[in-house]
Amino acid sequence: MASFSGHSSQSYAPSAPELPQSGRYGYHHGATPPPNHSYYGMPQQQQQQGPGYMQSWFPPGTNPDVIRAFEMVDRDRSGFIDENELQQALSSGYRRFNLRTIRLLMFLFKNPYDSLRIGPKEFAALWGCLGHWRAIFDRYDRDRSGKIDSMELRDALYSLGYALPPSVLQVLLSKYDDRSGRKVELNFDSFVECGMIVKGLTEKFKEKDTRYTGSATFTYDTFMTMVLPFLVSYD
Amino acid sequence: MASFSGHSSQSYAPSAPELPQSGRYGYHHGATPPPNHSYYGMPQQQQQQGPGYMQSWFPPGTNPDVIRAFEMVDRDRSGFIDENELQQALSSGYRRFNLRTIRLLMFLFKNPYDSLRIGPKEFAALWGCLGHWRAIFDRYDRDRSGKIDSMELRDALYSLGYALPPSVLQVLLSKYDDRSGRKVELNFDSFVECGMIVKGLTEKFKEKDTRYTGSATFTYDTFMTMVLPFLVSYD
Ligand SMILES: [Ca+2]
Ligand SMILES: [Ca+2]
Repeated sequence: MASFSGHSSQSYAPSAPELPQSGRYGYHHGATPPPNHSYYGMPQQQQQQGPGYMQSWFPPGTNPDVIRAFEMVDRDRSGFIDENELQQALSSGYRRFNLRTIRLLMFLFKNPYDSLRIGPKEFAALWGCLGHWRAIFDRYDRDRSGKIDSMELRDALYSLGYALPPSVLQVLLSKYDDRSGRKVELNFDSFVECGMIVKGLTEKFKEKDTRYTGSATFTYDTFMTMVLPFLVSYD
Repeated sequence: MASFSGHSSQSYAPSAPELPQSGRYGYHHGATPPPNHSYYGMPQQQQQQGPGYMQSWFPPGTNPDVIRAFEMVDRDRSGFIDENELQQALSSGYRRFNLRTIRLLMFLFKNPYDSLRIGPKEFAALWGCLGHWRAIFDRYDRDRSGKIDSMELRDALYSLGYALPPSVLQVLLSKYDDRSGRKVELNFDSFVECGMIVKGLTEKFKEKDTRYTGSATFTYDTFMTMVLPFLVSYD
């Protein structure tokens, strides 16, 4: 699992309410995702290169840590991040970050001009979002097990404004049940996936429930188009 | 891939409209799923045992082929089929049947008393459903590639009464894109998954659109509860 914790920094995307941004969760100290340890062994010269070739593509005021992260994740230096680069960056030597979550993230933060890669702007939003989810994960992993169980998930989602009925929580968690008989606990990647699905579907719902009645009306096409992106993906 | 084709038989579940049954697709000749070749090597005595220990659990009039299939799939002779037994039965030596599809099937046909296993009654419905999907797969695999491409999928779903807008079809197929640059084609397991998702979501939608207006209204809880079961599952 990528270590997203333990790095202090200010929040650099403090107030963006919609899905592809992370500021909504900005009431936690937004931990800047650190360079993943995969990169600790990079040649010194590259590590010292600093904010360089990509800086001009980032929005003004982007935290230099994010620019450095981009440069490290963009291994082929194409100026874009593809799913393999992102997965490598988020995986550790002993655990691969779930490709499904990577693809969901790439979809949610996608570049309008390129569905398979994200650019600096999208990366900054995605990286910030992951940092915030990491902070939430750490905050609600109350027993410090390194995983989020059912009650911890309920509280984490509740703190974000998603009050899921127990029946919905149960259905959600059952998707992560490995049938071993042990209680279901989520690693960081599954937690992010879960959170992004709840957040994404809830926001889609709210778009159609502008008066906060708790009910929303959809046409069939809208319904299918909004739900399908959250479904299974090739693996 | 399991060979579900090439076995002639009558349809044995001719008129069940709802999801966990298969009769809706009964206008094709419902091919009874044959014993999978994994079982061709079973001891003769067991093969000859015939409709036996489980017969009383099946609805009256159940096709004896289904009872034989159940006995072969139920390897530990517990009287129930678990996901591993189902996966083994549907996998061939060279290709495993997708566990995600297995779990979706188990969920959709689930036994109300046991969420991890299905009994004879549920098995009969599931097996019949798979036989029908196999017939549809073979019918719409027009170029005999052994896979269903985008146009073949569109026509197959259309024939079942699901007229998906191109944008929805595109989103659906994108979930099976392996990023190789080759056109997306579905194996039987992915085709079943796709079909069950479209069928399941459409039926959920129609339950709330009883007057066929093309629009439906959901509460947030209903919306989440109906959509989440079709989402990602642990793997
Ligand atoms: Ca925990
Ligand atoms: Ca074909």
